[in-house]
Formats: sequence, C-alpha cells, structure tokens
Amino acid sequence: MTRHLRLVLTAVAGSLLVGLSGAVVSHAQAPAAAATYTSDGKLTFPADYRTWVYLSSGMDMAYVEGGGGQMHAFDNVLVDPAAYRTFLQTGTWPDGTVLVLEVRSAEAHQSIDKAGRSQGGRIAVEAHVKDTARFRDAGGWGFFCFHGEQPGARIPATAACASCHQAHAAVDTTFVQFYPTLFPVAKAKGTLSSAYLAEEKAK
Amino acid sequence: MTRHLRLVLTAVAGSLLVGLSGAVVSHAQAPAAAATYTSDGKLTFPADYRTWVYLSSGMDMAYVEGGGGQMHAFDNVLVDPAAYRTFLQTGTWPDGTVLVLEVRSAEAHQSIDKAGRSQGGRIAVEAHVKDTARFRDAGGWGFFCFHGEQPGARIPATAACASCHQAHAAVDTTFVQFYPTLFPVAKAKGTLSSAYLAEEKAK
Repeated sequence: MTRHLRLVLTAVAGSLLVGLSGAVVSHAQAPAAAATYTSDGKLTFPADYRTWVYLSSGMDMAYVEGGGGQMHAFDNVLVDPAAYRTFLQTGTWPDGTVLVLEVRSAEAHQSIDKAGRSQGGRIAVEAHVKDTARFRDAGGWGFFCFHGEQPGARIPATAACASCHQAHAAVDTTFVQFYPTLFPVAKAKGTLSSAYLAEEKAK
Repeated sequence: MTRHLRLVLTAVAGSLLVGLSGAVVSHAQAPAAAATYTSDGKLTFPADYRTWVYLSSGMDMAYVEGGGGQMHAFDNVLVDPAAYRTFLQTGTWPDGTVLVLEVRSAEAHQSIDKAGRSQGGRIAVEAHVKDTARFRDAGGWGFFCFHGEQPGARIPATAACASCHQAHAAVDTTFVQFYPTLFPVAKAKGTLSSAYLAEEKAK
C-alpha cells in the first residue's frame, strides 16, 4: 500500500502538469454539461469519460528533474466532445470544457508482449475544468482529484499544478503542446500563449 | 528516409499484432458504416477515427523476441462507437466493427518534459475490420494498411498478423487482453477465446 500510495502521489504530482480542463456548460447549450457539481462544490465523477475524445498519452513523463514515480505509468488525456469540436474551430477551449487525465500502470510482459509496456489498472483520475465564473480566482480553470468514482474535491488554486500550467502550457493553461492533433490547430489559429512562445524561442 | 522506413516496417510488423477490427455495417443499421470500400476493394481511410472510442496505448511493445523498432513508438487503438457499445453489452464484436491502430513516435524532452515520452508525429495507421461475408476466407476479419490517408489495401490473409491474432488474441481475434476497460467485460460475458485461456493456464 505504501508503494502504491507513493506511486499515486508521484503520478499525481507529475500528471497534474499534463493538460486537463472543463466547466459548467451554459444553460443555452443543448448537450448535457460535462461538468456537474455537488452542493458542496465537488465535481461529479464523469462516468462516461472513456467515450470522450482521446487527446494523447505519455509514459513516465515528469516536469521536474527527478520527477516521476518508482513504478512505470501511462497518462491518458481525454476531453468532452463538445469542447473538442469548439477547439477545432477556434483553437481554444470554451467555457464548460472538461479534460480528464487518467493514470494507469505501465505493465511489462503481459500476455505475449516481449518488450515495452501495455496499460494496466487505473491509478488516478483528475479533471481540469474551465468555468470563468466559478474559478474566477484562478484564471477560469479548476483542478479536481477523484478518489475512486466519488465526487472529487477541488485542488487549491495555490497548488503547484496551477502555476505550472499558467507558466508553461501552450493554450489557455492546457498542455496542448503534447496533443498532436490539436497543436497544429492552435498554431494555425494563433492561440499559442505568449508564455509558451517565449519559452520555445528561448530554447 | 531509410531510418523512417525501417521504423515504419518494424512498427507495422509489431503493431499489426495489437488488436484492431471492423466491417461494412448492415443496411438495417442506422449509423453510417465505419468501414466503406472503393470499387477495387480498398478500405476508405476512416477520417474521423480520432473521435472514436479510445481503447488503449502501448509503448515499444513487441510480440516476438527482439521485435520493436529502433526508434521509440506509441501504439494507440480506437474503435468505432457502435462496435464499442455492442461490446459492452455482449463481450464481443458485431459485424461492422472497425478497430484502428495508430502508431506515433515517442518523443523525449518535448517542451518542459524532463523524463519519459510524449506522443509526436503519426507514423502508420492500420485497420482491423470484421465482415463475416467479405472476409469469409480469414475467419471474418480483414487487416488493412494505409499510406497517408489514401484508401488502404488489404494485407493478405496469409500474413503473420492474421495467424498471430488467431492464436493469441483474447476475443474474436482481437487483443482485448490489452484493453483494460474491455477485458473485464469479456471475462464477465465468458467470451475469452479457448486459445487465450489455454495459453494463460499454461503459464
């Protein structure tokens, strides 16, 4: 259990930095809101997120030197379909966007696999939600961490994930530089953040 | 170019073994067929496959000792939504199923990433299509390989991919043992193949 917890913590620390996002869809929009909340402000677990649009996966990524878990892990990122369609048109995320980060163990030698890694059990699920009114204190985005499929509490806006996303993410605090089908859209629409562009220029 | 071609070939060789699938949807079904063909029997490129349901990713997987490319690569597998819904209900694939395997480069040190790998450019796209009438010669499934987004030619039923899928795949010639959200469904519905069960028992 200690080893597992350590993995969860390091995976969460590392993975919070991968782009996520989402928020309450306005009442004018037809589809059901991807983000819904309990009366005490927790985010309802998005039970159908595995049918959302897949953005990318990483393996053992770490945003700080020496980061990453002691076990191997994949990060999968999916976004609600309405937000995805808007991004293709505009190069950025609408209010109501929910990005889900799913962390899974990276298993070796499963079945007939002789090399590399395949995905195993789910270790953590987090969400990054855009709602400019609700998250006015944090640039319009909130991070949430789930335990199992219970409603997830918001991660404080002062946590490291928020400042890192603000400083390094390519589009509207989301790590679109790691989403190969969306990055060219942002480039074409001119929505890459000035912080990201300055960082890439300085390389 | 030589290095790239070598990678494509090794990626294709390795990745053909990851579960894919698909076929012409019967005229009775409402949604548009996931698989459509040119007059000379090629499979039309499924332009919208990135909005299909994500099944899993592997990194550097190889089904033969010493297999795998010289460059690092991710395999992403997606399935058409209608087939996914049927699998959840039945534990197996309906006629008309199309699974797409997308191979992408696995990049190190992109943006602020300090460790592990993130996904880069697309290297190859293949499809595995279920159509019991059309692929009667090969147990009801056909493999297709695309070059760019042009219609893809069928891979001969005598190719190694077909016999490997037949011998080792967990459900109906598809590698459901590597799809963590579907494997428990197949287990619960009792649709795991006898070949797979015997192989796991012998371990």
